[in-house]
Amino acid sequence: MTAGPAAEEAALTTLVRACRRQPVPHTPVWFMRQAGRSLPEYRKARGEGSILATIADAELSAELTLQPVRRYGVDAAILFSDITVPVHAVGFGVDVEPGRGPVVAEPFRSPADLRRLRPLEPDTDTPYVGEAAGMVARELAGTDVALVGFAGAPFTVASYLVEGGPSRTFARVKALMHGDPATWDELMDRLTGMATSFATAQVRAGASVVQLFDSWAGCLSPREYERFALPATTRVLADVAALGVPTILFGVGTGELLPLMGTSGADVVGVDWRVPLDEARRRVGPGHAVQGNLDPALVLAPWGVVEAETEDVLARAGTEPGHVFNLGHGVLPETDPTVLERVVELVHARGRAGVAP
Amino acid sequence: MTAGPAAEEAALTTLVRACRRQPVPHTPVWFMRQAGRSLPEYRKARGEGSILATIADAELSAELTLQPVRRYGVDAAILFSDITVPVHAVGFGVDVEPGRGPVVAEPFRSPADLRRLRPLEPDTDTPYVGEAAGMVARELAGTDVALVGFAGAPFTVASYLVEGGPSRTFARVKALMHGDPATWDELMDRLTGMATSFATAQVRAGASVVQLFDSWAGCLSPREYERFALPATTRVLADVAALGVPTILFGVGTGELLPLMGTSGADVVGVDWRVPLDEARRRVGPGHAVQGNLDPALVLAPWGVVEAETEDVLARAGTEPGHVFNLGHGVLPETDPTVLERVVELVHARGRAGVAP
Repeated sequence: MTAGPAAEEAALTTLVRACRRQPVPHTPVWFMRQAGRSLPEYRKARGEGSILATIADAELSAELTLQPVRRYGVDAAILFSDITVPVHAVGFGVDVEPGRGPVVAEPFRSPADLRRLRPLEPDTDTPYVGEAAGMVARELAGTDVALVGFAGAPFTVASYLVEGGPSRTFARVKALMHGDPATWDELMDRLTGMATSFATAQVRAGASVVQLFDSWAGCLSPREYERFALPATTRVLADVAALGVPTILFGVGTGELLPLMGTSGADVVGVDWRVPLDEARRRVGPGHAVQGNLDPALVLAPWGVVEAETEDVLARAGTEPGHVFNLGHGVLPETDPTVLERVVELVHARGRAGVAP
Repeated sequence: MTAGPAAEEAALTTLVRACRRQPVPHTPVWFMRQAGRSLPEYRKARGEGSILATIADAELSAELTLQPVRRYGVDAAILFSDITVPVHAVGFGVDVEPGRGPVVAEPFRSPADLRRLRPLEPDTDTPYVGEAAGMVARELAGTDVALVGFAGAPFTVASYLVEGGPSRTFARVKALMHGDPATWDELMDRLTGMATSFATAQVRAGASVVQLFDSWAGCLSPREYERFALPATTRVLADVAALGVPTILFGVGTGELLPLMGTSGADVVGVDWRVPLDEARRRVGPGHAVQGNLDPALVLAPWGVVEAETEDVLARAGTEPGHVFNLGHGVLPETDPTVLERVVELVHARGRAGVAP
């Protein structure tokens, strides 16, 4: 006798069930950048040096991925990797500087630079990604902890390639999209393929959810987002969804973009702390779960404040199924891990979205 | 015979009329940071060295203020100064680094630091501000060009004092407001007094509009903004309005805050490029003019794009009185001034808000 749909259903993790807006035993919670500098065990295990070199060490990467699962009791591990791994792997010349972020030695400047973006071959270009994901998935097998795979959305990856590093104004990337839309579209095509390949490799190795980070989409006006970013994102999400896993689309400062993000095909829309979660639910529209949205800076406030704000997020998430608790952006390096432990306990005890009363 | 209300009315500049939602001969336009590194004449006149030293030279400051008026034909001069001038002048230990922004040698860390924020005495602490404003006002007398005075809103000034410089996360300032609200409120009180004194000195010297820069308010959630930032802003705006000049309240990334900003008492609410202007008008509610909101990064795109986006802003501003054209944030240093010249021409020719058909 083989396992039928009912058995498969029963085996779904709490995170996957919440992403699909099914009833859950408790509100699932994980934290963006939960593996990172806020954890003493991370600082000890990783040491100094390039983040990309750490990522290329599958065993170390798997260990860093699992550290926050052990410490926090979160409902998901997210692979310790970076959205620039694919463009780095095809030789574009990217490094990730601790405390600064991705920097590009020779930024994308003209159509000639498209040649520097050949398709990603995950098996040979980034074998360590599948290996690390596989190790983590085997460690988590039989538990209720999901492995989240991820990729950078084409717009956000392009913003690093064009600006040469983190930006406040995104002036170069906007000049390119508006000034040479044909080259922009070709760039989006290349990065769409790379994001899909990168995410697919993680799903094949055992990731059961994929998050697409369009972290900087919030710098775009709604019309810019719709024309220059959303089409590529929609294609990646469709290709990943075809693998049978739910998808999460996340960005910062996306209040005006939430209705458009709701048309992307993502199962879950991630929200930063600026938009209250009940309002975010209205904007993304029915048929979506939401993820978020405690302010990561607030976690540094006294516990009474963190507790009240966490309860507020849970109250605004409501009782309808479809809430994944998370911060509104990544864990800050100066965060006290014991506070996040208490947040996890509180969310598990008090979350009500899709939880039987 | 003395001039009656009708004569006073006739003497109002186009900018003041737009701020008060009165009919105008054309849509007024000016640019935040229009005096600055994008202008070759600015780079030549200012030379190197501290921005605060330049500001303390009233004659040079007046010249820098007038440069963009001559070049662009804008409807307003904005005093060449900085929101940190008052806290610098009372000895808090602030400098403004070109390309980085305000930096604070010894950031605000505890209630003891309140002693470092005595009241501002504009006549003796910052005489150069009134002198420069007076020189500019005399130069503009009898023209249709208004002088805009300004101050930093207490929250945004506090963010520099507490963080020690520009921040991406605002973690320290949020930890202070939530962790020690009594100290926060006292800090807001001090900065409220300083902002009011600073703006009042400019109005007495001839400024006919005041803009309050709450540039970083957009990092706050609506509840945080309402509790920790809006009360101080409201007090400054009331005190300035009592001088008989219209007020503009501006911030970046404030999409979620616009309804609250509409309750601040400001005559005009400034909007960045993320929220389309017709939607911004809806959010701030009736009884307000709006200012904005061309993306400063877009000005670096080809002219056809700049033209189309400018026309879109004008179309969304509609025909009801009460639109001041501006960028959604400051002019970027790499901006080509000839593009801004063309934007001014286009706005003057095509703006329709409150303009008789």
